[in-house]
Amino acid sequence: MNLAFCRTVQQQKKGCCKLLTLNKYSVQQWLKSFDAIIYDADGVLWRTDKELEGASATFNALRAMGKRAYICTNNSTKSHLGICKKAQDMGILIEEHEVLTSAQALARFLAEKKFKKKVYIMGEEGIGAELRAVGIEHLPIGKEVMFGPDMYEYAKAMPLDKDVGAIAVGEDRDFSVPKLTKVACYLTDPSVMFLATNRDIAFPVAKGRYVPGAGVLVATVKAITKRAPMTCGKPNPYMCNQLLREGNIKPERTLMVGDTVYTDIQFGYNCGFQTLLVGSGVSTLDDVKKLQSSKQPRAYQQVPDLYVPKLSDLLKFLPSRNG
Amino acid sequence: MNLAFCRTVQQQKKGCCKLLTLNKYSVQQWLKSFDAIIYDADGVLWRTDKELEGASATFNALRAMGKRAYICTNNSTKSHLGICKKAQDMGILIEEHEVLTSAQALARFLAEKKFKKKVYIMGEEGIGAELRAVGIEHLPIGKEVMFGPDMYEYAKAMPLDKDVGAIAVGEDRDFSVPKLTKVACYLTDPSVMFLATNRDIAFPVAKGRYVPGAGVLVATVKAITKRAPMTCGKPNPYMCNQLLREGNIKPERTLMVGDTVYTDIQFGYNCGFQTLLVGSGVSTLDDVKKLQSSKQPRAYQQVPDLYVPKLSDLLKFLPSRNG
Repeated sequence: MNLAFCRTVQQQKKGCCKLLTLNKYSVQQWLKSFDAIIYDADGVLWRTDKELEGASATFNALRAMGKRAYICTNNSTKSHLGICKKAQDMGILIEEHEVLTSAQALARFLAEKKFKKKVYIMGEEGIGAELRAVGIEHLPIGKEVMFGPDMYEYAKAMPLDKDVGAIAVGEDRDFSVPKLTKVACYLTDPSVMFLATNRDIAFPVAKGRYVPGAGVLVATVKAITKRAPMTCGKPNPYMCNQLLREGNIKPERTLMVGDTVYTDIQFGYNCGFQTLLVGSGVSTLDDVKKLQSSKQPRAYQQVPDLYVPKLSDLLKFLPSRNG
Repeated sequence: MNLAFCRTVQQQKKGCCKLLTLNKYSVQQWLKSFDAIIYDADGVLWRTDKELEGASATFNALRAMGKRAYICTNNSTKSHLGICKKAQDMGILIEEHEVLTSAQALARFLAEKKFKKKVYIMGEEGIGAELRAVGIEHLPIGKEVMFGPDMYEYAKAMPLDKDVGAIAVGEDRDFSVPKLTKVACYLTDPSVMFLATNRDIAFPVAKGRYVPGAGVLVATVKAITKRAPMTCGKPNPYMCNQLLREGNIKPERTLMVGDTVYTDIQFGYNCGFQTLLVGSGVSTLDDVKKLQSSKQPRAYQQVPDLYVPKLSDLLKFLPSRNG
C-alpha cells in the first residue's frame, strides 16, 4: 500500500487507520513517505520520569533508518535543555537543537516582538529559563504568600510592578489565589499581553486519577479577566515555524507522533504533517471515534491518519540493524 | 408616578429608571408597592468588614417603615450566624432567621435530598458550619499539602475517601493544585455530585484591583471535569424558596436590592421580585447599558427596574422618624 493508496483508504474510513492491521510491506512503504519525525514527549516517549517501554529503542531505530528526529513538547516545567538531558538519560539519541518546548516558543515570540518589559510568570522554572536565554527579564517564580488574613486588604496592598508587560501562564504546582489575584490585576491593563504556553487540560496518572494541566489554569484567568491568551505551544504551528523556515523539514514529508488529539494531532493538521496517534497517553480510540462521528466541522482535524497502541509497536516493522 | 406608570416608563426605557431623577412623591408611591426587602450584603451593606456609608441607618429606617427585611448573600466564607453577627455589629437590626447564605442553601439542598455520604469542600468554614448544622459530614477544610516534589506521584498516592458523595465549591483562599487534583479525581465518578455555592467572578477592591470569587474556581473544575455544577446560591431562586413556601414574602410585593446584575438582579427576575441596583459594588451603569443594547434575549433579565448610586441615597425619600 503506498501513501496515495493509504490516504484514499483513510478518507473512506475518515482517517485513523490502525497500523497493526497493515502488512509489513505496507508499513514499510508508508515509512518511506517521510524523512522527519516530530515526537511529543509525555505519553509517547515517557510518562513523568519513566521511559515508556521500548520508546528509546524505537526512536533510535527510526533515526538509524535516516529519519531526522525532533521532540516537540508542551511541557513548560523544564527548559529545552532540561528536556533534552532527560531524553538523553533515557538513551534517546537527540541533541539540544532538536528539542522544542512551549516555554521556548513563548520566549521566542516575545523576543521576536522585541519585548523590553518584564514578564510575570504563573508557571514554573522552564519558562523563566527560556526567557533568560533570550535576555527577557521576569519577576521571581514560585509561591506567592498572602500577607494578613484578608484577601481584600491583601489585594489592595500587594505590590504590582509597573514594568510588567506580559503574563505567562503554564503548568504551575504553586498556583494559588494570591497569584491569580495578581495576574487578574495585571491583565486589567489591556496593553499587558496574556500568553499561555499551552492549553492541555489533564494528564492521566492511574485509573480515575489525573493531574491538571496548564489549560485549567488558563481557564481561571479567562474566567476572571474575560481575556483569551495567545497560546504559543501546540496546536499553534508557531511551535515549529523555525524548523520550516530554515528548511529542516518539509511538511509533506514529516510525521507528527503524539498521544493527545487536541494538541498533537491538531498541530500536525495545522502544519500539514502526517499524523500518528499512540494510545499510551491522553487520547483513546474512543475519543477518536467520537471525533469521527462528530458533526463539528473541525473535529476531523483531530482525527489522526494512523493509530498504534504504543510507539514500540513500530519496531517489528523496522529493518533489523543487520538486515 | 405610581408603580404601574413607573413600570410603563421602565418598559419604554428598557428598565433601569434612575431613582434620583424621580420626585419624592413618586418614590414614596413606589415604596408603598412592596412590604419586604431582600438585601445583598457585600457591595450593598458593607465592603469586606467596613459598613458602606449610611447603610445600616437606611436599612433600619426602611424596617421602621414596616418593611420586612432579609439579607441574602452568596458569601460562603462564614455561616449565616456569622454573617448575622457581622450585620448586628454594624448596627443593622436583623435576626438569625432573616439571614440567608449560599452555603446554607447548599446544605439545605443536600439535607432535602437525604444525603448520607460525606462532602469534600473546596471552600471555607462557612460551608462546613452549615453542613454540620444539618447533620452532614465533611472532610477537613483548609490547605491540602502536596507530599513529595512530583504531582504525578502525589496524584497516584493521595488518599481518596470512598464515602465522598458530593463536592462543594465556594470561595477558597486556600485553593491549590493538590485540592483541584482531588476534586477532579472525585468527580470522575458520575454519582458524585458537583455543587457550587455561587458563580460570582470577582469583587473590586480598588481601581484595577480585584479578588477572585467562587466562579473562577468553578471554572477550573469545569475545565478539568467537563461537568457543570448545580449552583445553590443566587441567581438560583432556590435561595429563597423557603421564604416563599412559608408565605413570608409575596414575589410581587418584594424588592431585591443588589450590586451585581448577573447574580442579584437575575435572582430578582427569576423570583418575580422588583429589583434595585446600587452602584456601590460590582456592576456599573455602563454594564447595564451594555445589557440594554445587547441582542442576547436573556440580557434584559439582568436589567434592574431601578438604579441608585448607593443605598443611603434612599434616606432622603423616607419619612423622618418624627414626621
